[in-house]
Amino acid sequence: MLDLSTIISPTLLLNEQKCQANLKKLTQQAKKHNIQLAPHFKTHQSAQVSQWFRDYGVQAITVTSIKMARYFAKHGWDDITIAMPINIREIEAINSLASQIRLTVFVNSMETARFLHQRVTAPLPFCVEVDTGYHRSGVISDNTEEIRAILATAQDSQLQFTGFYSHAGHTYEATTHQEVERVHQETLQQLNQLKETFRPAYPDLQLSLGDTPSCSLMDDFTGIDIIRPGNFVYYDLTQHFVGSNSVAEIAVCLAAPVVSVHPERNEVVTHSGWAHLGKDSLTDKVEKSWYGYVVTLTESGWSAPIEGAYVAKLSQEHGTLYLPDEYLEKVAVGDLLGILPVHACATVVMMGELTTFSGEMIKTMSVQAV
Amino acid sequence: MLDLSTIISPTLLLNEQKCQANLKKLTQQAKKHNIQLAPHFKTHQSAQVSQWFRDYGVQAITVTSIKMARYFAKHGWDDITIAMPINIREIEAINSLASQIRLTVFVNSMETARFLHQRVTAPLPFCVEVDTGYHRSGVISDNTEEIRAILATAQDSQLQFTGFYSHAGHTYEATTHQEVERVHQETLQQLNQLKETFRPAYPDLQLSLGDTPSCSLMDDFTGIDIIRPGNFVYYDLTQHFVGSNSVAEIAVCLAAPVVSVHPERNEVVTHSGWAHLGKDSLTDKVEKSWYGYVVTLTESGWSAPIEGAYVAKLSQEHGTLYLPDEYLEKVAVGDLLGILPVHACATVVMMGELTTFSGEMIKTMSVQAV
Repeated sequence: MLDLSTIISPTLLLNEQKCQANLKKLTQQAKKHNIQLAPHFKTHQSAQVSQWFRDYGVQAITVTSIKMARYFAKHGWDDITIAMPINIREIEAINSLASQIRLTVFVNSMETARFLHQRVTAPLPFCVEVDTGYHRSGVISDNTEEIRAILATAQDSQLQFTGFYSHAGHTYEATTHQEVERVHQETLQQLNQLKETFRPAYPDLQLSLGDTPSCSLMDDFTGIDIIRPGNFVYYDLTQHFVGSNSVAEIAVCLAAPVVSVHPERNEVVTHSGWAHLGKDSLTDKVEKSWYGYVVTLTESGWSAPIEGAYVAKLSQEHGTLYLPDEYLEKVAVGDLLGILPVHACATVVMMGELTTFSGEMIKTMSVQAV
Repeated sequence: MLDLSTIISPTLLLNEQKCQANLKKLTQQAKKHNIQLAPHFKTHQSAQVSQWFRDYGVQAITVTSIKMARYFAKHGWDDITIAMPINIREIEAINSLASQIRLTVFVNSMETARFLHQRVTAPLPFCVEVDTGYHRSGVISDNTEEIRAILATAQDSQLQFTGFYSHAGHTYEATTHQEVERVHQETLQQLNQLKETFRPAYPDLQLSLGDTPSCSLMDDFTGIDIIRPGNFVYYDLTQHFVGSNSVAEIAVCLAAPVVSVHPERNEVVTHSGWAHLGKDSLTDKVEKSWYGYVVTLTESGWSAPIEGAYVAKLSQEHGTLYLPDEYLEKVAVGDLLGILPVHACATVVMMGELTTFSGEMIKTMSVQAV
């Protein structure tokens, strides 16, 4: 039980039970399909939370930067993939960490392969990231010529090809289960085509997938060996509207002190700006952006969203909440309201630490020395 | 001179000369109109940068939270205004700091006035924030009845009424000098009306204004005693499009390593996501959002923006930059590109530290113990 009177400033609350249930759900999903879960830790960025994954048998993890890799390596993780095209300017840090743990990187171009061939001083497993339609990064999946050239360049060095990865980020633009399904099937098809093409030369190559919507929702993982979802640990409203989770599964909530009440326009201002929530928005039917749902906090969690209430505007530290009459009447300056985030990854980055309902303080890498 | 080869990861660069010129410009603006500059420190959030303001005679400052007030008090500032409706849950921290320095707060409601009347234990100067049209917080400026009630409630306590404040944040929506002028004149008119009404009872009351566009651009400050702009210290593209500054006056730039090049769609990916830049966007003529301008970095600064280049998409750590053919041809994996931010306050919050061209590391409160 958390004594809400002890919360005086904006505080990110973590419902550990919901978080554990989310971990269990994805672990079961992976087990059911006989695939490895190598979760992305960019959402929680916390050594403490990372330990909870151990109980579910997680051994390999995914991050977005060498900085994050170093942080988790320091906290006992020894099989880490940096799921971003490798930044070759950081070669010294990469060599250093690769000499201590199994560090896997993404090599997506001949230029990068050539550079690494010359400069890598420790065994360095790598994936080739392939672009299956999201068009952010990666080799276009049917460009087998480029892939062959990368693999040829990597030979006779400490580089070790391990397989293909795709982040089908365009599932986030899906608004129906069918759209996620369509994107997912296209990705599966392209990855399996590559597996078939390159398996004769690389019999151990593995396929891995990155996005939370596919990993949460889909039932067909034909040919996939590893999934690397991140957001599922907390979930959020963006994922909810894609269909990945129910609102009840969202495990984080910002406790925001009410600093002014404006009944004439159905608004209250809370201390909860983009410096706390991040600035991600969703758009309603009339193209109006909003930044979160509003809930009532209790000593053991929070209510379902207040119907008709939402975060309407964000400044750096002011959050403007629209509240319907019947709820607004009960709200006074000095109260605490809860806000369910549009994008949990952003809210966690902004806040840097979380408080559980047993009163434990959870720190992330941004407030912990690496 | 800064050796660019030493920059291996995303790094926020600060051009100290531009910053000093911005300080000088606003100081001269204040002097010219015989008003006090009590700058808002939420943009830089840095004890080191705060010392530069001393050379320009700044003695009183503005912040957004008790946390920020404590940080700057620890670094020698003893006249601090928290420009946000006071969070009464933080009363103990407020009393504690108010017993050490001159701490001014905003009291915008009877509820708050009543609470403080009972609970304040140290002299506590306060402004009444008035809403002159932005409709975020503050008493509607013609509601003199509410204001009288607040002032009456504050009597016979350690609360000391000092005057009225308005943040005319709707100047940010202006697209022409004339629109800023119109909003500014309306604000001036409303504030001066209040001065006239309440001066007989409070002969020392002062008027203060908060927004950077008005403070940067306007030439009429009739009746205004104090200006509290923040963003001008670095400026950014949002302010540029309102008209507050030229692009050349922007003093911060994110150095972003190129991690992949995609000539087929005129894009490169840099390590520069919303976790580095923040997620503020501007919108072009065809309603497409973009997140920054692209510049070439040199050892002493950066170029004018590359024509036709912009930050097109942001993920957590990936930044997708659109580059025109002739520039793209010269860019390779491992290069460093510069990004001018849409919103400097956000970029500074995300990065937490800055590097000057003399190689000095500037820290903000988020990476410094308070």
